[in-house]
Amino acid sequence: MIQDLKYDDNGLIPVIVQDIDSNEVLMLAYMNKTSLEKTLKTGKTHFWSRSRQKYWMKGETSGNVQLVNKILYDCDEDTLLIIVEQIGSGACHTGNRTCFYRKIETGQPDSG
Amino acid sequence: MIQDLKYDDNGLIPVIVQDIDSNEVLMLAYMNKTSLEKTLKTGKTHFWSRSRQKYWMKGETSGNVQLVNKILYDCDEDTLLIIVEQIGSGACHTGNRTCFYRKIETGQPDSG
Repeated sequence: MIQDLKYDDNGLIPVIVQDIDSNEVLMLAYMNKTSLEKTLKTGKTHFWSRSRQKYWMKGETSGNVQLVNKILYDCDEDTLLIIVEQIGSGACHTGNRTCFYRKIETGQPDSG
Repeated sequence: MIQDLKYDDNGLIPVIVQDIDSNEVLMLAYMNKTSLEKTLKTGKTHFWSRSRQKYWMKGETSGNVQLVNKILYDCDEDTLLIIVEQIGSGACHTGNRTCFYRKIETGQPDSG
């Protein structure tokens, strides 16, 4: 299956990471085939950094690793969704639990 | 805020869509600035189709529109997460509720 996924022109596929306990979407990052293989082999998420052009394991400095529970792929086979157990305080380098901690004002009253 | 988001070389930003009721991740698609403005204006998700090179409103043929509850952006300002009320049977053109209905075998026993 890994080789059938549709990687983009840079050999990358976007990966959504979701928390198995809270169901929060924690982050989006990118994998290439090798980082997906590292992820499958180790059971911890490994990505490709587009800015630094290198492999990184989530939590390699912070200790906030992500233990893989399940890897899903979408109908178009060009996006992954990984359900993880997030170790430590959270996924975001800012210290927030999720990278999605800010809201765009939509002009609609917030119903909660 | 919309103009401060980091769109890619094609003027696009990936958008994760999550169901407000089930917390399921439904799909990933792409927006440009105009489709985000359409989304904000109408309260229904509008995307840019990379394959068809045109705007599309989710549900424009199926009727399965997505009513926007909340739009979040990530720490890097290069990904959106939209929480929606999914109208109808689901988000996926295959008839599944979510586009992520298939699993990559990880070689680990499924704990549920």
